[in-house]
Amino acid sequence: MKTLIEKIGLLATPLGSHPHRGAEQGQIAEVADACVLIEEDRILYAGPRAGCPEGKADRVIDAGGRLVTPGLVDAHTHLVFGGWRQHEVPLKLQGAGYLDILRAGGGILSTVRSTREAGEEELYRKSAAILDGMLALGVTSCEAKSGYGLDLETECKQLRVIRRLQETHPVDLVPTFLGAHAVPEEYKEHPDDYVNLLVERMIPAVAEEGLAKFCDVFCETGVFDPDQSRRVLEAGKAHGLIPKIHADEIDAIGGAELAGEVHAISAEHLIATDERGMQAMAEAGVIACLLPQTSFYLGKTYAPARRMIELSIPVAIASDFNPGSCPSYNLQLAMNLGLLRYKMQPAEVLSAVTINAACAIGLEGEVGSLEAGKKADLVIWDAPDLDMLLYRFGQNLAGTILKAGKEITR
Amino acid sequence: MKTLIEKIGLLATPLGSHPHRGAEQGQIAEVADACVLIEEDRILYAGPRAGCPEGKADRVIDAGGRLVTPGLVDAHTHLVFGGWRQHEVPLKLQGAGYLDILRAGGGILSTVRSTREAGEEELYRKSAAILDGMLALGVTSCEAKSGYGLDLETECKQLRVIRRLQETHPVDLVPTFLGAHAVPEEYKEHPDDYVNLLVERMIPAVAEEGLAKFCDVFCETGVFDPDQSRRVLEAGKAHGLIPKIHADEIDAIGGAELAGEVHAISAEHLIATDERGMQAMAEAGVIACLLPQTSFYLGKTYAPARRMIELSIPVAIASDFNPGSCPSYNLQLAMNLGLLRYKMQPAEVLSAVTINAACAIGLEGEVGSLEAGKKADLVIWDAPDLDMLLYRFGQNLAGTILKAGKEITR
Repeated sequence: MKTLIEKIGLLATPLGSHPHRGAEQGQIAEVADACVLIEEDRILYAGPRAGCPEGKADRVIDAGGRLVTPGLVDAHTHLVFGGWRQHEVPLKLQGAGYLDILRAGGGILSTVRSTREAGEEELYRKSAAILDGMLALGVTSCEAKSGYGLDLETECKQLRVIRRLQETHPVDLVPTFLGAHAVPEEYKEHPDDYVNLLVERMIPAVAEEGLAKFCDVFCETGVFDPDQSRRVLEAGKAHGLIPKIHADEIDAIGGAELAGEVHAISAEHLIATDERGMQAMAEAGVIACLLPQTSFYLGKTYAPARRMIELSIPVAIASDFNPGSCPSYNLQLAMNLGLLRYKMQPAEVLSAVTINAACAIGLEGEVGSLEAGKKADLVIWDAPDLDMLLYRFGQNLAGTILKAGKEITR
Repeated sequence: MKTLIEKIGLLATPLGSHPHRGAEQGQIAEVADACVLIEEDRILYAGPRAGCPEGKADRVIDAGGRLVTPGLVDAHTHLVFGGWRQHEVPLKLQGAGYLDILRAGGGILSTVRSTREAGEEELYRKSAAILDGMLALGVTSCEAKSGYGLDLETECKQLRVIRRLQETHPVDLVPTFLGAHAVPEEYKEHPDDYVNLLVERMIPAVAEEGLAKFCDVFCETGVFDPDQSRRVLEAGKAHGLIPKIHADEIDAIGGAELAGEVHAISAEHLIATDERGMQAMAEAGVIACLLPQTSFYLGKTYAPARRMIELSIPVAIASDFNPGSCPSYNLQLAMNLGLLRYKMQPAEVLSAVTINAACAIGLEGEVGSLEAGKKADLVIWDAPDLDMLLYRFGQNLAGTILKAGKEITR
C-alpha cells in the first residue's frame, strides 16, 4: 500500500536523528513544491516533487499547496489522572494561597486521592478521549507520566493504563515513572522513608514489570531536594530507567546541575535556572524541555529559552498537561507561546516540538523528522508556511493528520 | 416544531435585557436539573425541569448532565479583510519596531492595500470560513467592522460583505463603520481632510445605504485625536449611527471621557484608561468592551477590569479578531484570559460574553440570556459547570451548538 502526498506547497522539517542545538535548532529543510511517498507506515521519500520515485501510488492525497511538517511530539504530559480541579480556580481568584487550597482539600494530593479511587477502565477511557483531542491537534507521539498514585499499586495502575493506550490508541506513548512527584500524606512527617520506598521497592517493581522507560523526580523546595532526587534517579538508572528531572520550576536549588551530573536525557520547566545550571546542562548534553503553558496559566515568568539556545542546549517545548498547573494539552498554543514569550523563531519552535521532543523521549530514530525510513507521522496544516502556523493562535490549524501512514478521521 | 433539551446538569445564564454592572455582573441564574423548550427559533421555557410545560416535543436533545449557557456574543471583530500578516512575526522577533515594519511594507496599511485589491466574492468566502470557525467555538452573534478600506468604495465593499454574510450565514452579524481606523496614505500630510471626507461624504453615504448600525473611531496618539474623533462620532450620530470608540489602547488621551461625552454605547480596549476616564464612562453608562487576546498577543498590560466592575461599568469581553494585533477569533481563550488576567470570576466572565456583549451591539432584546421569548441560541458545553469551562484552556469545549433553534453540524 503506497500513499503519495502531492501538491505540498512547503515541506518543513528538521533533518537527522539527533538533538538540534544552537544555530542548528533554527536550521530546517524548507522545500517548496514537494511530495511525500509512503509505504505502509514508513516514509519512502520526502522532498522536491522532481525527485520523487516513479511508480503508481494506491492512494493520492492532495495537500492543496499547504504546509506539511512532521507530526508533533509532546514530550511532557501527566496524561492519566482521576478528577479535575476546576473548583480551585475561584478560590485562587479570591486570594487563596497554595496552603489554603491544600487545607480546603485541594492541590496535588486531591488528584492523588481521585486517582487512587478511580478504576483502571475509567482512567483508560478518560485518557483515551484526551489523546483523541491531542491527536486532532497534530500530536502523533506523546510522553505520559505516572505520579498521582504515590503508592506502588496506583502508580502501576497509571502505568498500565499508559501501556494499554499504547497498545490500542494511534498515538505512540512513552511511559515515565514519576513516583517522586510529591511526598504522600502518609509520609509527610518522614519523607526520607518515602524516598527509601521509591528506591528499594517501587522503582525495582516498576522496572521489573517493564512499565516505564524513564524515571522522573520533582526536585523543588519543599518537595524533593537534590540529594533525595539523586537517590531516586540513580536507583532508576540502576534498574535501566533513563533519568528525567523536574528542575528549577520555582527555585534554582541545583536541579539543573543534578541533571548534568546524572546525565539526564532531559530537564523540565527550568523557569528559575541560573547560568551554572545551564552550563551543567550544556556540558552534559541535557535537553531542556520547556513548558510555556504552565508559565502562562500560573502567571509566572518564562524560562530563558534564548539563553539556552545561545549556550547550545537543545530546547524542546511540551504541553505539561495536568489537572493542577496546566489543564491544557494544546501543543499548538505552547508553540505560539514559544514564539511570543520565549522569542524563538518559527523554525526553532518547529525543531522544539519535533526532533528535539523526539530525542527527549527516545523516539528520534522513529519520528521527529520527515525522512526516508522514519514513521509516516505528519500534519498537513491549514497554513501555507511556518510563519502562519505560529502567528495564528487560538485556532486548531491541523488540517489532515497522518499517523503511521493512516489518515486520522476526526 | 418544538425542541426539548433535557437532562441539563446546570443551566447558567444572566437574566434580563440590560447591561449587568457592579455586583450584578457576577449574579447569574444557575439551575441544576434544568430543561429548555424551544419552538422554531425561540425559547418557550428555560428553567427547572419540574416547571417545564407539558406536551410532546418533535425533537429531544439529551444534554447528558452537561452545562448549558447562552450562545456567545463577540462584540468586537475586524472580520473582513484581505491577506494576512504572518511575515511580520519574525521581523518583530528580530526587534523590528512599528515603523520598521511600516517601512518594510507591513502594518495596517498593508492590510488596507490587500483589502482594496481583494474582490467582494473572495472576501465573502474567506470571512464565511472564519465565521464557521467562530460558530464552532460557540459564537452565535458577532459584530464586524469595516476599516481596511479607508476609501468609500472599499469600506462599502467590506460592509456589503458583512450584509451578505448576515443574509446567508447562521451567525447573526451587526455591522460597524470604522472608516476612521487609520489615516490613509493619501492623506498622511493632511489628515483633517480625511476627517472632512469621513464626515461629509463617507458617513452620509454609508448611512444612506443602511450599511452600518454603529460608527467607530480609533482615538489614539498618532491616529485620531479626541477632537477629530468627536467630529466623526457626532457626524455618525447625526446620520443615525450609534457611536463606539477605540479608546485608550496605548495612551489615555481622553478617549474614555469622549465616550462618556457622546454617550457611546461602548468603548473598546481601555488598557491605559485612568480614573477620570472610567468615571466618565460610569456616569454615562458606557459599556467597557475589553479585548484581552490583544494584550496577550502584543505582550501588553491588561485593562483594569476589576476596577471597572467596582465602578459599576458593565464589562464585555470580545475577541478583537484582526490580522495585525490579534489573529485569533477564539472567544473561549478570551474568556480564559478574563479569568486569569482580569481576575474576573467565572459568572462575571459569562455575563461579559453574553448579556453585556449583546448590549454592546444592540442585540439584548434578542440574545444574551436564556429566557422565554429570546432567540434559541445556546451551547451545550463539554463541561459540568462554569468553573470547568473557564479552567480548561486550549480546548474547544463547545459540544452541541444551537443557533436559532437549529443544531449546528460541524
